[in-house]
Amino acid sequence: MNWRLTETNQVDKQAIERLGSKFLIGNGYLGYRGTLDEYTRDQKVACIVSGLYDKVGDQWREPVNLPNGSYVQIVYQGVPLHAHFSPIESHSQTLDMQRGIHERSTRFIAPDGNRITVQSSRFASLDVIHLMAVEFIVEASADCTITIMSGIDGDVWDLNGPHLSNFATDARDSILSLTALTHEQHIPVAVSETLTREGSTAVQPEDRRILRALEVPLKAGQPFTLHKFIAHYAGIDSDNPLADSRSLCAQSAQTGFDALLENHAALWADRWDACDIEIGGDAAAETALRFSMYHLLAIAPTHTDRASIPARGLSGQVYKGGIFWDTEIFMLPFFSHLFPSIARNLLMYRYHTLDGARRKAQEYGYRGAFYAWESQDTGDDACTLFNITDVFTNRPMRTYFRDKQVHISADVVYAIWDYYTITQDESILLDGGAEVIYECARFLLSYLYYSREKERYEVLDVTGPDEYHERVNNDTYTNAMIAHAFEVCLKVHAYLQQNHPEQSQALINDLDFAHDLQAIEDTAAKLYVPQPDPESGIIPQFDGYHSLEEVALGDLLLRKLHPYEYLGGGSGLATTTQIIKQADVVLMMHLFPEKFSQSLKGCNWQFYEPRTEHGSSLSACAYALVAAQIGKIDWAYKYFMKTAQIDLLGEGKQYVGTLYIGGTHPAANGGAWMAAVMGLCGIRLADDRISIKPQLPDHWTDVTVRMTFRGQKMTIKLNKDDIVVETDESSLKETALAR
Amino acid sequence: MNWRLTETNQVDKQAIERLGSKFLIGNGYLGYRGTLDEYTRDQKVACIVSGLYDKVGDQWREPVNLPNGSYVQIVYQGVPLHAHFSPIESHSQTLDMQRGIHERSTRFIAPDGNRITVQSSRFASLDVIHLMAVEFIVEASADCTITIMSGIDGDVWDLNGPHLSNFATDARDSILSLTALTHEQHIPVAVSETLTREGSTAVQPEDRRILRALEVPLKAGQPFTLHKFIAHYAGIDSDNPLADSRSLCAQSAQTGFDALLENHAALWADRWDACDIEIGGDAAAETALRFSMYHLLAIAPTHTDRASIPARGLSGQVYKGGIFWDTEIFMLPFFSHLFPSIARNLLMYRYHTLDGARRKAQEYGYRGAFYAWESQDTGDDACTLFNITDVFTNRPMRTYFRDKQVHISADVVYAIWDYYTITQDESILLDGGAEVIYECARFLLSYLYYSREKERYEVLDVTGPDEYHERVNNDTYTNAMIAHAFEVCLKVHAYLQQNHPEQSQALINDLDFAHDLQAIEDTAAKLYVPQPDPESGIIPQFDGYHSLEEVALGDLLLRKLHPYEYLGGGSGLATTTQIIKQADVVLMMHLFPEKFSQSLKGCNWQFYEPRTEHGSSLSACAYALVAAQIGKIDWAYKYFMKTAQIDLLGEGKQYVGTLYIGGTHPAANGGAWMAAVMGLCGIRLADDRISIKPQLPDHWTDVTVRMTFRGQKMTIKLNKDDIVVETDESSLKETALAR
Repeated sequence: MNWRLTETNQVDKQAIERLGSKFLIGNGYLGYRGTLDEYTRDQKVACIVSGLYDKVGDQWREPVNLPNGSYVQIVYQGVPLHAHFSPIESHSQTLDMQRGIHERSTRFIAPDGNRITVQSSRFASLDVIHLMAVEFIVEASADCTITIMSGIDGDVWDLNGPHLSNFATDARDSILSLTALTHEQHIPVAVSETLTREGSTAVQPEDRRILRALEVPLKAGQPFTLHKFIAHYAGIDSDNPLADSRSLCAQSAQTGFDALLENHAALWADRWDACDIEIGGDAAAETALRFSMYHLLAIAPTHTDRASIPARGLSGQVYKGGIFWDTEIFMLPFFSHLFPSIARNLLMYRYHTLDGARRKAQEYGYRGAFYAWESQDTGDDACTLFNITDVFTNRPMRTYFRDKQVHISADVVYAIWDYYTITQDESILLDGGAEVIYECARFLLSYLYYSREKERYEVLDVTGPDEYHERVNNDTYTNAMIAHAFEVCLKVHAYLQQNHPEQSQALINDLDFAHDLQAIEDTAAKLYVPQPDPESGIIPQFDGYHSLEEVALGDLLLRKLHPYEYLGGGSGLATTTQIIKQADVVLMMHLFPEKFSQSLKGCNWQFYEPRTEHGSSLSACAYALVAAQIGKIDWAYKYFMKTAQIDLLGEGKQYVGTLYIGGTHPAANGGAWMAAVMGLCGIRLADDRISIKPQLPDHWTDVTVRMTFRGQKMTIKLNKDDIVVETDESSLKETALAR
Repeated sequence: MNWRLTETNQVDKQAIERLGSKFLIGNGYLGYRGTLDEYTRDQKVACIVSGLYDKVGDQWREPVNLPNGSYVQIVYQGVPLHAHFSPIESHSQTLDMQRGIHERSTRFIAPDGNRITVQSSRFASLDVIHLMAVEFIVEASADCTITIMSGIDGDVWDLNGPHLSNFATDARDSILSLTALTHEQHIPVAVSETLTREGSTAVQPEDRRILRALEVPLKAGQPFTLHKFIAHYAGIDSDNPLADSRSLCAQSAQTGFDALLENHAALWADRWDACDIEIGGDAAAETALRFSMYHLLAIAPTHTDRASIPARGLSGQVYKGGIFWDTEIFMLPFFSHLFPSIARNLLMYRYHTLDGARRKAQEYGYRGAFYAWESQDTGDDACTLFNITDVFTNRPMRTYFRDKQVHISADVVYAIWDYYTITQDESILLDGGAEVIYECARFLLSYLYYSREKERYEVLDVTGPDEYHERVNNDTYTNAMIAHAFEVCLKVHAYLQQNHPEQSQALINDLDFAHDLQAIEDTAAKLYVPQPDPESGIIPQFDGYHSLEEVALGDLLLRKLHPYEYLGGGSGLATTTQIIKQADVVLMMHLFPEKFSQSLKGCNWQFYEPRTEHGSSLSACAYALVAAQIGKIDWAYKYFMKTAQIDLLGEGKQYVGTLYIGGTHPAANGGAWMAAVMGLCGIRLADDRISIKPQLPDHWTDVTVRMTFRGQKMTIKLNKDDIVVETDESSLKETALAR
């Protein structure tokens, strides 16, 4: 049973932050951190709503953390029982990944010695996305009366808030509500709460809270059960958040906890049915992989195509709730293969934010669509020019993420094409994808310069994935992605001309794209993409990379004078050396596996691996994927586990300086799926067929992988000797191709 | 009499460093700091030989400081008398600018109360450039016997030395010699010394010194006079330095001090006759201007066209003895107008170092000639990639001086053309100038990129004069200089084709330049040079300049956390603001005065002046020159005095961190001449004629300027009402043109 993750007696500050992320529940609309019922802002409770952002003054625009409707606090003889502050005999927290349920069980030692045990189960309904439901059970070892304070706590955790004001409370028909407005756009939000058991209650409205107190007499050993339903609405999805949330509360109470849970669990079962992977002989890997998929599914938007997955999922406000290339390059393949409708939502988000990308291109003097480095609801760039604080001077440091990571637009094109290749869903092209591709290609075209000397187009002054080297020329990853984007642009145009000539022509006319299309064709032929050195096979990451200082990573790190100092930026230690932040050339090799021979992949992996600091959670999976391709199974496994366990072990950095950067790492989760399925299991789409070339670690006795390929569901079973592909209709037995 | 500068009782450490520069004597071959006879390495004695460089290990390559043959130390009753350490009654140091003589007079208080007065006069012969001569006079207030230690001190001051080793001493025929070899190339150097008065001497050879002791009985009030001759040779100018230096000593002793001085003074008189400026009503300005011209003349190479003037002249090893654009843009006009043969030497130095510039272009993947940012004997770049140390981390800071200040090659072209325009000396073109121009144009051509979007060539990724903003695109100064270089290249080619068709064709063939010439013609027509904003008239310094933070200079400086922190570099305070290091757009307006209207000059001066930190000594003169053109006489005067007095007041920075950066500022000296003559007096060459549009400060009653124009010497006399131009043949009276 690798479905339940449990941690016991973890109530110190560090554990609270770590488990808040690790045990997050969510349904794509809202994400609720794995905190305890009685926790408040100090314990980083967060209920983040996808797509709802706010900005206060000059501070960073970031997601809004809704009032916490799941708040429950036991008071015993006037003393609140709080896992972090009160004496406890035992405590455990569990994530049921199979059904998307967070559970806690805590046995408090009351001042008089009475043992008060609190158990709760909580889920964010997959079925009714505005709803969270809690089952709260309390039991005492001796007869007593407790007070249960339950309601809505609006005094929430914020990084750059407070984002809510104009609080108002409401208490009618046993439903408590707290409403407020966001700061920037005055978007109304409402959270309502109701309980199945009224008891003798007294409602206590405060400034930012509304609670009710239930006096509950307990008999020793006899549990008291309470069901609590919390409804969340905001102006982005409701014309009347208060009414809608009240109505959902009433309706949920009528349906009841058990029925709601059943519906919720059934939907989770469907999901696992579509994607679960079983790994014989390696329970740790199986768990890590399920954990990775659980997190992807908990935050994936099923309800809208106007939101996407931020870099820290729905685990808080870190990185401004921004959608990065993480989604397209690292998360999307999981969805494209297994949940195409979610993948489509993620891509359509880029279509809906196309105007923001157009504005950004214009802002920098280009044409077409320059996607935001950190994208929010409008597609305008939330990334600031000063994203990091220098530890030595405490000054904001100019970074070239926002204005120079032009690969983002090529990444979006890559993703749309990858989705289309996997699903053959041409509607993505017709419904906006083609427009996005054309506009991205147009932007990239407008970014190029021609060298008369070298008779080629070059890509100057960019920052590639390796952010430790900013403003470089002819960054191999970027150039290759642009070449690909041009290729896709021309392919898509040819496809639409042939299959939807009228719509195609209308789009070309609408966008006034005919001239650019011709230019893209001409330019693509002369676009420079750095090539391997004829002798060594090494592809330089960018112009002049090889003339940078060669230094061992360990030696470079020894030069640090401050533990949190940033290695990039204006004067970072890595900037003048060959040490890179993350997979870059190697990532490109993963994205274009057929373009590079085994030997080129081998020597470049070997060259760049020791030069990579893995300062990004996006790095490990690329090294795993290419390692698997070149038969370095040990390394592939090591890097797979690194990416799959990132939030399971929670060893990542939680702070940079005083800035909290903790949260979940969905790109690493997506990378874990890729590393396992496309890497170690060697299952990849190639030339319109599934190719299976497993590179299983020795201790993996057998692996069962679920896969969907162009609508055809299949189960692929691998072991040392066989590859068995079972489809809905038939079961085929093939000999291994890779041996 | 504004010819003699005197400072009294200045013997503290700071004064020693300041006066060492201020009172420098030199003859273009050697520069000798204004230190006292008894001073040693600790007081920064230096005898720098033009064009002699050395490098030790990984340290910076820099000029060699020869053994100090001028060393004289009085010992009285076993105690050395030393102005810095011994009790003194009075002390003065004087620079006789008219004759290029350094004088000192010190009255020591001996332990027994006896007053020992030491007077010396020292000159570096303009006539015999390897020679320095000293007249040393000592007198006591009471009868006594003193010991005069005189000889050669090889234990010299070095920044990145020691540069000399393999010392050997020699003492024959009353001549002492010290020989040594440089470290890198084992170049032999020799310094010999002889005295007119032998006395009872005992020679004391030591490891790096050779001294003789003269026992001298003194009668109260009766001066004792000693003449000392020092000869300096190095392998770069002699096949046998020891023999040559011995022979020069013997010969000089025979000629005698007075005769040598007479010849020397006569040559200085000739120089002043050619260039002196008299300013009625402003003795301070007159002195400052003479001081500026004195320093230029003291370090200008008359003896060779294989050396040029370093940024710190011959005052020491600061800035690696590197020749920067300072020479071409700031010093050359003085020489081109008044001492064309010296100007020609300076320019021919660039021809002789053309191969170094070719190597640098090739190193960076370009063609043609990319001149060194810091050029030494070979033309290879002495500038390192890490030129500054970060005060917060003590780490070397990557700067983009060496690789991105491509304007240097355009500056060289500008200078050659300016010289040719002023002198009409076509030999400069035929003897190498054309080749330099072609190769520079070729380099600049190979640096350009074409924007298909904007249908123009652009100049990307450069550092302009304002080094606080590195790696910018379309730096207006740089683009304008490149446009000019192309224009000059085409003009020179046309001229040579017409006037020297065979030589012209041979050069084109030798350089395989026909194809590039055509490309330069095509490219020049499409080269982008940023234009004034149609409304404000402001020309942006580079792409995106206006989007940088606007902050008052004073406010920016308040943000400094460390007094010596560098405002540029990777994370410097100025880099993200509109604060610039030095005149940049305004400098361009000075260089192309006819290309900009009064109104454009006015609004750009007004815009950039408050944004300029003047972190470079090259800045003030440009603001003076353009201020004069737009009638801002007060500002022109203020900036003229700032540049003219820089080393007179010695208020410039002497240290950055622990690094000594003191020394003379010949570019500011050249700027002072330009600011006075071309600026305030408004004397400029335009359309093959001298144009005179004076903008005299109110208190300047009358000014007399010497000028040479195409071989014709003239004296221009200006006052409030008249402009009188006297030539050798005739005297013309013209009405003022500028009123």
